[in-house]
Amino acid sequence: MRIGQGFDAHRFADLKAGRPLWLACLHWDGDGIAGDSDGDVAAHALIDALLAAAHLGDIGTLFGVGADSDGAGRHGAEMLQATVDHLKNHGMRPISASVVIIANRPKIGARRSEAETALSAAIGCEVSVTATTTDGMGFTGSGEGIAAIANALVEPLE
Amino acid sequence: MRIGQGFDAHRFADLKAGRPLWLACLHWDGDGIAGDSDGDVAAHALIDALLAAAHLGDIGTLFGVGADSDGAGRHGAEMLQATVDHLKNHGMRPISASVVIIANRPKIGARRSEAETALSAAIGCEVSVTATTTDGMGFTGSGEGIAAIANALVEPLE
Amino acid sequence: MRIGQGFDAHRFADLKAGRPLWLACLHWDGDGIAGDSDGDVAAHALIDALLAAAHLGDIGTLFGVGADSDGAGRHGAEMLQATVDHLKNHGMRPISASVVIIANRPKIGARRSEAETALSAAIGCEVSVTATTTDGMGFTGSGEGIAAIANALVEPLE
Repeated sequence: MRIGQGFDAHRFADLKAGRPLWLACLHWDGDGIAGDSDGDVAAHALIDALLAAAHLGDIGTLFGVGADSDGAGRHGAEMLQATVDHLKNHGMRPISASVVIIANRPKIGARRSEAETALSAAIGCEVSVTATTTDGMGFTGSGEGIAAIANALVEPLE
Repeated sequence: MRIGQGFDAHRFADLKAGRPLWLACLHWDGDGIAGDSDGDVAAHALIDALLAAAHLGDIGTLFGVGADSDGAGRHGAEMLQATVDHLKNHGMRPISASVVIIANRPKIGARRSEAETALSAAIGCEVSVTATTTDGMGFTGSGEGIAAIANALVEPLE
Repeated sequence: MRIGQGFDAHRFADLKAGRPLWLACLHWDGDGIAGDSDGDVAAHALIDALLAAAHLGDIGTLFGVGADSDGAGRHGAEMLQATVDHLKNHGMRPISASVVIIANRPKIGARRSEAETALSAAIGCEVSVTATTTDGMGFTGSGEGIAAIANALVEPLE
């Protein structure tokens, strides 16, 4: 069994200037987010945790970086599925994963179950989502952006 | 075996305006902390890591949120015990857990062993406590507040 | 199997005032870093994750704190090796570890493989390195410093 750690952060953006907010593979009304992909920090932190556990690089290695990359404009769910396919091609599969979303908004609680279902469906094992704020402190507390910390366990395919 | 990630942060408060500082299930003299419960970020991050590993929601799901919640005014140790009871009711138990405390103060080193004993007693398996500062940077470095990052492994009860 | 969490952060410093930048057991040209040891946040976060997983204290317990400590002036690779020796003396060994580097610079991607090789050689099991920025937010986004989050699994020696 192998362990991986992931982290990501994105800045909120005006809906006109940024992209619609996707988080934990769900669309959330009212906010925009900066980023070349769909800006889904929960999905991206989880991708890094999975790739790290499998010792297969990180999201930049697999999808590239920037507006011309393979990840540009892609949704978190699609990128998570591609990540798990990449693991399978290297003889590994995820067995458990978890992600903490750190932000003032959106309010995750009411849609936690939906978020867990979407992430779990994307990678084929249970993913837990927890959410917290930083009590008004730091860049998440000021409402400047969203951060996510993820961990994951993978094992060899039988 | 399943993995979970947890995070929490609370703001220091004047002792008269806030609550006495509890951290890692210990009382620390001299500082006050904001929050509806006892503001114990180490206990709360650990609760989220345990609930995430067991795929049973997060601290808000189990204890509610705000001044009228089940968690209001409760100590971390009591909430950790209730968390482990909740896991047992769902056929799971913690097998290993760890929490990093990120803060200028209090100085954890001299009471690390005491903190580990208190947290371990609360959940019934070894909990490790490490502590670090952020070299004067960010909200923990400015002395504005305390953050904690936790992870945990749980397994099915035999 | 046991799990550990680690975190560290150091502030960039003028090369004349600070030390040359070491990160993930590699030297990086052009930047200086503050700290009593070599300021390698990736190595230090990993040391804390390993010690936490083994329930053997943290980097301050093992190497001391400050300019007169055992860790003063020592490189991350040497400290990681001493950490694994310490684990062995207590009947444990690392089996998997992972570290996220959060910083604007240096750019890790081009030397990721080299960094993973250096960290893996130091502890005797695979270590994965992922890297991300915080989109200009917080102390890592302003270029003030570097942070690292690590996790690790250890098991008893046979």
